[in-house]
Amino acid sequence: MQLSFWFEFASTYSYPAAMRIEACAAARGVTVDWRVFLLGPIFKAQGWDDSPFNIYPAKGRYMWRDLERICESQRIAFRRPTRMPRNGLLAARVACRFRDAAWLPEFVRAVYRANFEHDLDIASPTVIAQCLACADEESDRILDEAQSPPSKALLKAQTEQAVGLEIFGSPSFVVDGELFWGNDRLEDALSWATERVG
Amino acid sequence: MQLSFWFEFASTYSYPAAMRIEACAAARGVTVDWRVFLLGPIFKAQGWDDSPFNIYPAKGRYMWRDLERICESQRIAFRRPTRMPRNGLLAARVACRFRDAAWLPEFVRAVYRANFEHDLDIASPTVIAQCLACADEESDRILDEAQSPPSKALLKAQTEQAVGLEIFGSPSFVVDGELFWGNDRLEDALSWATERVG
Repeated sequence: MQLSFWFEFASTYSYPAAMRIEACAAARGVTVDWRVFLLGPIFKAQGWDDSPFNIYPAKGRYMWRDLERICESQRIAFRRPTRMPRNGLLAARVACRFRDAAWLPEFVRAVYRANFEHDLDIASPTVIAQCLACADEESDRILDEAQSPPSKALLKAQTEQAVGLEIFGSPSFVVDGELFWGNDRLEDALSWATERVG
Repeated sequence: MQLSFWFEFASTYSYPAAMRIEACAAARGVTVDWRVFLLGPIFKAQGWDDSPFNIYPAKGRYMWRDLERICESQRIAFRRPTRMPRNGLLAARVACRFRDAAWLPEFVRAVYRANFEHDLDIASPTVIAQCLACADEESDRILDEAQSPPSKALLKAQTEQAVGLEIFGSPSFVVDGELFWGNDRLEDALSWATERVG
């Protein structure tokens, strides 16, 4: 049984999802397919040039408070980043190009922690190199490879695939064609994998 | 311990919330304060002249599927209404004017069922009278009273109160000043009432 985890590094609610998905899935005997994508083009197609949490202030203020509560209940560290959304393009290129690497889940979590625990700029190659170091890897080679034209094309294609799956937000989970949106739907998606598909 | 339940009759996700809130709250020893409001003016202030589920089609298609799954898991009947959103103004005036009536919770559920189970037009006084009949009441007197100028002013003031509480969607739950948004936050709101406030 497999669950596809569709995530964008700039997304706030994807942080608690990314931190818990591997353990939650393993506990149910489900494997995770890590699928990064970019929300920017999807939001742009809806007429948004910024995060909806910035465009709609009351919704934004609620989201920060809600996220704080969620992180507290999940017992994960949280510090509100001084900038949101941050540009996750470089991190996304790495996560897309190396989606099958053994170190990928640890890298994804390191990037989310950089943004939402340590308030670091994940657009910075230095920060991303540090996230790769957490994963015990040669960061230079990986960053070069991730920024090659084929890797760029790969992420573009994967984002188009997200659109084709009708994904409109992050995190999203897809199980056997069934779409679930939001950190709070992870348990439902896992139940779908084990009870309906498995 | 008290939880304020802020709801708009046109709201899709408020249907499963309205159907279960009284029983869920009672099981935790929490009383429900039923607070109807209008989303229209709030959406208008955000620049929307329709439901976001109509404005953003992928989000809308997802919502209908998600709602279907939720109703199935809650074991409540669901038929996708032929029109969304429906005009819940009359029903809201009744629910606002008679918020302390013993029959209020049953009336609220009857209106949601009319819309989301029986595909009836809840803007119709005949349909609302039938919903009141479920509550064993003299519908004519109630409908007249609900449409009096003071009752209209009361709903307007209650909607402004929702805005003051930073409410931006339905259903919302407020416990001791803490805001929770969405049917899937009902359990968190009840826990807040019993563990933090109680």
